Amino acid sequence: MTTQELVDQIHKKQSFLCIGLDTDIEKIPSFLLEEKDPIFAFNKAIIDATHDLCVAYKPNIAFYEAYGEQGWSALRKTIIYLNKNYSDIFTIADAKRGDIGNTSTRYAKAFFEDLNFDSITIAPYMGRDSVEPFLQFKNKHTILLALTSNDGAFDFQTKKFEDKELYKEVLSVSTTYEGAENLMYVVGATKAEYLKEIREIVPNSFLLVPGVGAQGGNLKDVCEYGMSKNIGLLINSSREIIYASDQEGFSNAARTKAKELQQAMKKELERLH
Amino acid sequence: MTTQELVDQIHKKQSFLCIGLDTDIEKIPSFLLEEKDPIFAFNKAIIDATHDLCVAYKPNIAFYEAYGEQGWSALRKTIIYLNKNYSDIFTIADAKRGDIGNTSTRYAKAFFEDLNFDSITIAPYMGRDSVEPFLQFKNKHTILLALTSNDGAFDFQTKKFEDKELYKEVLSVSTTYEGAENLMYVVGATKAEYLKEIREIVPNSFLLVPGVGAQGGNLKDVCEYGMSKNIGLLINSSREIIYASDQEGFSNAARTKAKELQQAMKKELERLH
Repeated sequence: MTTQELVDQIHKKQSFLCIGLDTDIEKIPSFLLEEKDPIFAFNKAIIDATHDLCVAYKPNIAFYEAYGEQGWSALRKTIIYLNKNYSDIFTIADAKRGDIGNTSTRYAKAFFEDLNFDSITIAPYMGRDSVEPFLQFKNKHTILLALTSNDGAFDFQTKKFEDKELYKEVLSVSTTYEGAENLMYVVGATKAEYLKEIREIVPNSFLLVPGVGAQGGNLKDVCEYGMSKNIGLLINSSREIIYASDQEGFSNAARTKAKELQQAMKKELERLH
Repeated sequence: MTTQELVDQIHKKQSFLCIGLDTDIEKIPSFLLEEKDPIFAFNKAIIDATHDLCVAYKPNIAFYEAYGEQGWSALRKTIIYLNKNYSDIFTIADAKRGDIGNTSTRYAKAFFEDLNFDSITIAPYMGRDSVEPFLQFKNKHTILLALTSNDGAFDFQTKKFEDKELYKEVLSVSTTYEGAENLMYVVGATKAEYLKEIREIVPNSFLLVPGVGAQGGNLKDVCEYGMSKNIGLLINSSREIIYASDQEGFSNAARTKAKELQQAMKKELERLH
């Protein structure tokens, strides 16, 4: 999917919601455990109930890897289902990979070609040659961790690095990478006050913002400081939506939560755009 | 495996060699492609031919993930085979994971419990709460990326971070993590001159050193500056050993290469210890 197609979807759906598919066997409705593939059954129900309210889904790969071959099979079925039935959806493999060149190429092929995701999250610590292999794929997007929403972000990311904080150095340096036009960034919403400075470095890039809701971020602030002329925001919510209920009507409950967020986003789009 | 058991194995085998199982369908002998599971068949042959010359094996998870469910199945068979037949071997999942707390816990369970690896490599960018979930497992080891052997290491790792380079800050800060006694570190051998300063920060920790051989590191220098009173070194070689030949005698060729490195290590142990 091109960036412009993503922007078009945001306008069409009046939503920049990304739903995180952090699917956990211990948290899904227990009656689904009778299904042949409970993880896929859960994902399918959530997707069918919410696809018109969001523009992206983000399976967190750890949750699938935790179930080994079965988890990978459920992940594969989920992405095939999305690509087949909802080709207007932007798909994100939340993998946070990053390795030396030939290994990064492996990961890029696995997620972009084999599984056919639109994008993948990548950790920046290993630098240029760990990121560039992902940037060579046309119409595929690499979402680099810049400023994460967890407490550990203060360990290194926000410390001063020569004359600026590490996360700003990551943003700046990454814009010089070959294929940098395919970069997006993870920016935790719990630090909305940082967004203004981030926008000075990457004025037009898409930002994937976790942490609105459960992790304490504020939608209005994020939009105020983070929205670009092309919107440039994907706001992720995972547990609050997908685990809204563990009873029969769980997918409707997820829809209700997603709708609340979509409506709030619609307001922000009307207010700021 | 406890650290002491690893040290005992090093003395017993007169080797601190780790063999990287970066198994690539396109590089293994073509006649193995007739096997039901060529990846596992290759790994098994390499392991059977080299296990007495090394103390560790390190499957690079990207290479398995690239083949989806089949890759995971081959990875699982490999670790089961190692644990069953060569329980004196230290196993490393080269995964370079790192995520927020609950996700890191998932990865820790996947690699430490489900697959039963002795250790895993972890990226430090997300800080304390992304690393500590791994440190809570008894007799399991977390190998944090400090200074990697690729060119991209100079993007961020070696830049000055407040008063010291980022990789030194990673070393220092990580020693304050809960469970820090379970930490080891990745230090690229292409930067052997850094090892002296690294040993001032982490005098006793084990260092996993890639890049001797193909990536240009020098065994003698690495030992001179990096060896601790408990040896404290695992030196990895992947492609030079496992792809020494792609003909019938490939496992013997791998053994010959491994033996060369083991003999060089034996000399260093005699010289320095």
